[in-house]
Amino acid sequence: MSVSRRDFVKNVSLVSAGFGLLQPFNLPAQSGTPQLRLGFIGVGLRGQSHLQMCLERSDVAVKVICDVDDRMLGMSKELIRKSGKAMPEIVTGSDTAYRDMLRTDKIDAVIIATPWEWHKPMITDSISAGLKYIATEVVLGITLEDHWEVVRAAEAANAHVMMLENACYRRDILAILNMVRQGLFGELVHLQAGYQHDLRGVKFNDGVTPYNSGVEFGAKGFSEARWRTNHSVHRNGDLYPTHDVGPMAMMIDINRGNRFETLSSFATKSRGLHDYIVKKGGKDHPNAKQLFKLGDIVTTHIKCANGETIFLQHDTNLPRPYSLGFRVQGTNGIWMNLNNGIYIEGVSKYDHEHWDDANAWYVKYEHPLLKRWG
Amino acid sequence: MSVSRRDFVKNVSLVSAGFGLLQPFNLPAQSGTPQLRLGFIGVGLRGQSHLQMCLERSDVAVKVICDVDDRMLGMSKELIRKSGKAMPEIVTGSDTAYRDMLRTDKIDAVIIATPWEWHKPMITDSISAGLKYIATEVVLGITLEDHWEVVRAAEAANAHVMMLENACYRRDILAILNMVRQGLFGELVHLQAGYQHDLRGVKFNDGVTPYNSGVEFGAKGFSEARWRTNHSVHRNGDLYPTHDVGPMAMMIDINRGNRFETLSSFATKSRGLHDYIVKKGGKDHPNAKQLFKLGDIVTTHIKCANGETIFLQHDTNLPRPYSLGFRVQGTNGIWMNLNNGIYIEGVSKYDHEHWDDANAWYVKYEHPLLKRWG
Repeated sequence: MSVSRRDFVKNVSLVSAGFGLLQPFNLPAQSGTPQLRLGFIGVGLRGQSHLQMCLERSDVAVKVICDVDDRMLGMSKELIRKSGKAMPEIVTGSDTAYRDMLRTDKIDAVIIATPWEWHKPMITDSISAGLKYIATEVVLGITLEDHWEVVRAAEAANAHVMMLENACYRRDILAILNMVRQGLFGELVHLQAGYQHDLRGVKFNDGVTPYNSGVEFGAKGFSEARWRTNHSVHRNGDLYPTHDVGPMAMMIDINRGNRFETLSSFATKSRGLHDYIVKKGGKDHPNAKQLFKLGDIVTTHIKCANGETIFLQHDTNLPRPYSLGFRVQGTNGIWMNLNNGIYIEGVSKYDHEHWDDANAWYVKYEHPLLKRWG
Repeated sequence: MSVSRRDFVKNVSLVSAGFGLLQPFNLPAQSGTPQLRLGFIGVGLRGQSHLQMCLERSDVAVKVICDVDDRMLGMSKELIRKSGKAMPEIVTGSDTAYRDMLRTDKIDAVIIATPWEWHKPMITDSISAGLKYIATEVVLGITLEDHWEVVRAAEAANAHVMMLENACYRRDILAILNMVRQGLFGELVHLQAGYQHDLRGVKFNDGVTPYNSGVEFGAKGFSEARWRTNHSVHRNGDLYPTHDVGPMAMMIDINRGNRFETLSSFATKSRGLHDYIVKKGGKDHPNAKQLFKLGDIVTTHIKCANGETIFLQHDTNLPRPYSLGFRVQGTNGIWMNLNNGIYIEGVSKYDHEHWDDANAWYVKYEHPLLKRWG
């Protein structure tokens, strides 16, 4: 069953809002509810997370799933069996088998959750096949030209490509975005954020269990260790900027009256991944000889057309607690999420003028939008 | 009375450690204690703070003070009278009168606490006059060439020039430096800090009281507003980097086997100072027409020869709580002072892997060096 574009857009925005949230929606099942017909390219662990959320919805029908990995397909079939939903068509057998499922008489939209280097060809192939609604895991592509290819293809076909950047939908980010739009921070001046997540236990495993289980990667690794780690071997740069730049871009209207203009990026030496292999696998493990191009911390500055600066960090190779390290600063105040501190001139009442000694905790807020921090 | 170089160096290191600390030393007075003979160039509010500390010591004799401002000289004389110490010689009358006091038969050492642009000539004039021990408020000079002039003069005369950067002696910085040197953080990889201090109430006043009292500056301002604000009018850059880069430089041995190699710096638009004038003085105040070159936030990246990156911020024009925002990160862990959080792999026990939700507060430490954070 097909749906009208208008209903579809309404539905897909609901679906989009659900991606990546920890608590999926539980809408009551209704007979006769229009259903969005979905195809999945990639049902690894990330794709299965999206699949599970879709299986819990009455307004989505999973029509076809595609993967090249039998273990992942088996796990996905088990999820579908447990849901009681109809078993979708299974497409597999080769790296390009996904093209067989990209037909608008089967599906209205596709969700892509594959290794990064596959996103661009899968997006453009989906558009070429006539699909108008493509949701993809981050990133859109590897090179700048990859991204332009996606933009050109989408614009030529009037297709909608949505990157599933869940950080844009964090509750704190949406609250701060609302405050920004209501002018609480004044005119924004400077923003910071980072993908600061110790991924050593993701980049390496024992080839069987996904996390913290060993020091293998590539052909001997499982799940993300199989493909993602190679990007740390061969590339030095901010490999994964959307968790941080996505929310920032919304707040200062990037490509909606503002744009990134100038960029400067620095990388540190590379130590963390080698150290992890030696610590966990011993200095004689064959991977202890592996060189990694990726600097442990990559910092990037961006100057925007409207005069703001953005500071980004990519920090995935060292032991550290998780923090996206958001900072939103304007002419009236500042929010930083590391200390959960928010200061708005004339609104926040601090016992002490310093943040360094954790005095943010004694702040008293009187503004209704700030009650959460009170 | 003169002192031997060896005793002097011992004494001056005690004095140096005291500069900028909130609690001055209270050594017992001893008759016959060798005394360091000090001269002061500049006894404005900052110089008076140093003067007061020296007056409380029995091993320092203030022999001469110099300033061009009668009000500041009067305040200083009052401090000296209250201390019961002998009144020093007073030198005043012109911008170059200070040269009259720079004679080694009068003083062993000089403390310079004048407007920034005067530091370099006063340092080099002190060295030319034969003085071997010169302590100066930050910064050493305005231009890169200023700094080289100081280095060349000091090396040629075997003189010692100490910049009185108090952030290097913060208790937390000294504790972290000790941990760094004991290897707790492993090999250092990335460092951050910033001069993040809302100085609007310092850059502007009513010409009579120093802080938060008006929107005048330059000839109509008092104390720092009289001279410091002009740097925000005419210059765009990190005007005051030593609070942040000083402690970082110690931790990674800059000029002791390591060095700054590459630098990139970005400035935001300038809004904060104008906004402050309008908010406090009204849009019709003459200073509301003043343009300021200084971007509200200036961010600077440095890559070091040993592969570390440093990230600095200069953020003095916007409403914000004070924080120097230190971050010290190595192959074994990370410290950030905004949340007072420290994580060392295998040592820190977190209830939760995330810092974002303030779980740093629930950390339990077992390492003896970390008890302060326990």
